[in-house]
Amino acid sequence: MVSTDTSPKTAGHKRVSQLHFELLTLGDELLLGLTANSHLTFIGQQLGLHGAMLRRNVTLTDDADDISAQFAESWSRADVVITTGGLGPTCDDRTREAIAAVLGQKLVFDPEIEKTIADRFKKIGRPMTPNNLKQAYRFEKGEVLANANGTAPGLWVEQNGRVLCMLPGPPNELQPLFLEQIVPRLAKLGLLQAREAFVQVRAAGIGESSLEHKLQPIFDQHSEGLSIAFCAHAGHVDVRLSSPTGTLPDATLQQIAAECAFVLGDDFVCFGHNSLAEICASMLRSSDLLLAAAESATGGLLADAFTNISGASKFFAGGCVCYSNESKTQLLDIPEEIMMQHGSVSAETAAAMATGAAEKLGADYGLAITGFAGPCGGDQQNPVGTIYIALYTPRGTWSKRLNYPGPRLAVKQRAVNAALDWLRRELIRGQTGCGAGGCGLGR
Amino acid sequence: MVSTDTSPKTAGHKRVSQLHFELLTLGDELLLGLTANSHLTFIGQQLGLHGAMLRRNVTLTDDADDISAQFAESWSRADVVITTGGLGPTCDDRTREAIAAVLGQKLVFDPEIEKTIADRFKKIGRPMTPNNLKQAYRFEKGEVLANANGTAPGLWVEQNGRVLCMLPGPPNELQPLFLEQIVPRLAKLGLLQAREAFVQVRAAGIGESSLEHKLQPIFDQHSEGLSIAFCAHAGHVDVRLSSPTGTLPDATLQQIAAECAFVLGDDFVCFGHNSLAEICASMLRSSDLLLAAAESATGGLLADAFTNISGASKFFAGGCVCYSNESKTQLLDIPEEIMMQHGSVSAETAAAMATGAAEKLGADYGLAITGFAGPCGGDQQNPVGTIYIALYTPRGTWSKRLNYPGPRLAVKQRAVNAALDWLRRELIRGQTGCGAGGCGLGR
Repeated sequence: MVSTDTSPKTAGHKRVSQLHFELLTLGDELLLGLTANSHLTFIGQQLGLHGAMLRRNVTLTDDADDISAQFAESWSRADVVITTGGLGPTCDDRTREAIAAVLGQKLVFDPEIEKTIADRFKKIGRPMTPNNLKQAYRFEKGEVLANANGTAPGLWVEQNGRVLCMLPGPPNELQPLFLEQIVPRLAKLGLLQAREAFVQVRAAGIGESSLEHKLQPIFDQHSEGLSIAFCAHAGHVDVRLSSPTGTLPDATLQQIAAECAFVLGDDFVCFGHNSLAEICASMLRSSDLLLAAAESATGGLLADAFTNISGASKFFAGGCVCYSNESKTQLLDIPEEIMMQHGSVSAETAAAMATGAAEKLGADYGLAITGFAGPCGGDQQNPVGTIYIALYTPRGTWSKRLNYPGPRLAVKQRAVNAALDWLRRELIRGQTGCGAGGCGLGR
Repeated sequence: MVSTDTSPKTAGHKRVSQLHFELLTLGDELLLGLTANSHLTFIGQQLGLHGAMLRRNVTLTDDADDISAQFAESWSRADVVITTGGLGPTCDDRTREAIAAVLGQKLVFDPEIEKTIADRFKKIGRPMTPNNLKQAYRFEKGEVLANANGTAPGLWVEQNGRVLCMLPGPPNELQPLFLEQIVPRLAKLGLLQAREAFVQVRAAGIGESSLEHKLQPIFDQHSEGLSIAFCAHAGHVDVRLSSPTGTLPDATLQQIAAECAFVLGDDFVCFGHNSLAEICASMLRSSDLLLAAAESATGGLLADAFTNISGASKFFAGGCVCYSNESKTQLLDIPEEIMMQHGSVSAETAAAMATGAAEKLGADYGLAITGFAGPCGGDQQNPVGTIYIALYTPRGTWSKRLNYPGPRLAVKQRAVNAALDWLRRELIRGQTGCGAGGCGLGR
């Protein structure tokens, strides 16, 4: 599925992609399933972006003996070890001690860290309890990484050609610290690529194998030194192009990516990492267009996707969650007859919802979803998982029928992704002046 | 934060809570951050519910040598090793072989598994490609666990007093298999408690430390054999009561939990694991009441929380996502003067939104959220993070002002949790006939 050999740069005698990165995530809350291990997802992604691959992640308890044994093992085989958690004021301070013992280092009290912590408490107007001073210890031969969003700083050690980064556990502290300090430091040492290690082509509405089939002729022309990796996600598929041996310059990779985009046509979403909602938002915004949403089965999830984007009021007029037949009439003035004649889960009702939302909210585009998300509901004609999507546009209104088997939340998410992708395609057609797909219902 | 010694039962000479469980999650997609490690969250939670604690989780690549070395290490120290992934048709089949070598077992082809796989392909009407036959191999001295939702069965081995469970990677295959087959089998061997290992009291609107302070007098009366663990989540705090030594019978734990609920008053949410939205839904449903929502800042997330519950149309009339001033007037008939005079982010506008949604949708209760989720927006009076929540009830309409610092998505989630908790409290007051909290705005 994913090729990872994507690193032209080298660190000493090794390529970045051959370096051994290990991540130790500390905390009972992870092992008890109270908190998802977002550190693995975030750090794994970031290393991948910069040409390296995380080789192993070990999640273990706060027990000092366990930490000590695991760190010794990881440190003996890895080029870079990253730890998360175990640095806070309430944590057992033996985490630092356990690791210091393996490194053969002393911990020293650092008055500058103490001052930073005290200043932070002053700023938020709370008294500093003595246990906070645990956080003012650092390795004697190591550096301190300032934490702009919390009291525990990160710690950095370079020793015997290896690097240790210890990071605070809260994601809002760890993530900026990683992006702003760890990535540049590792890149400076040649342990990560400074820029993104690949050019990414994002596609939607096409499966992984069809995508490969469609793009293979392009790849065949550039077989020398080109590495291709496909990553399928919910709602889109990414193709990552890289040149692990460095034989292809960036400009060539971008040229190949442009060829892929051309061949993909409307299935091409973007270069890079933008979501379908972000792509729709930027197209709406740049054309000064307003969108309205009407949702039954997806119950607010579509509106939520748009309003997760800051400044959504510039392109999103609003939405209605009309679960019942009554609410479709009350909020969107949909004639009861349409639902009586065709059913509330039908192409006609979906089209009336899209039209009603757009007209009610004075929007240029209206996007509607109705269906049976399950596990209850459904009938012989429209079993659970049946979804109708409708799109109101300046050029006409269309609707289409889809079917998604699976649990309720997955059905909701897949329906939203399908609606976003349809809107995206229709916005492209709007820009180029062509007609829409789907089943025309007139206006 | 969490005490884990919650196991009265014993397996041989050890308590369940002292058993050593390790989880090996296989797959490059986890290490590349393409997929969150939901197996850790799910299995960690399930083991916790049944009195055990996961001691370690190692995520590693599909490399056979890595798997072999890590499995040998885990198998040497653990009582139970669970693996996920690496069983599918496209996976390198050396996963099974690597583990078989460590176990000193042979792999045998099982015609019954072959037949099950062939039947499954027949049912879904697709041809069975030969690589699927990899999945028909099992350990010579082991059992096969039927997989109702996929082709790769689970594998079960008991050897030298240890247990190995190998589970397929897709969550929709793994989770039912774990609940229906792994938990009962481990419980039968005394390696898990068959029933939940603790009585859980869920509270909201109160911090962890205040909660502890409030409940301590109750715990002091039952200090003999009672174990207490607090788990703080976004929007609620759980107290888990257990008797690790088995000295307190279940009835006593339930009695203590009931005392906690009584002392907590309205801060008590439920015994067990229901979400705030589920609790509100069940109160609305049992009183035959309808709720309507109006959202600005949270943009559909509140409606989404309700419509994640199957059968939501029974209690949820619908919702409006009215981001702009115009949409508040268009959808909810809110007089422009209210927004002109007080601003769209104000107690008055929030109250008008709650009232408008309830009246428009013919609902008994109306819940509204407006505010600045950030990072843009806000003014001197109402900086980013300011949220107004309003509640329309049969007894009056109230609104309150809250402030949540943090990133946009976190502000949205916290606002939704606060709104749900307020609705819950007001539904309790509705049942008991008392007045509401907040700032009355009349009707």
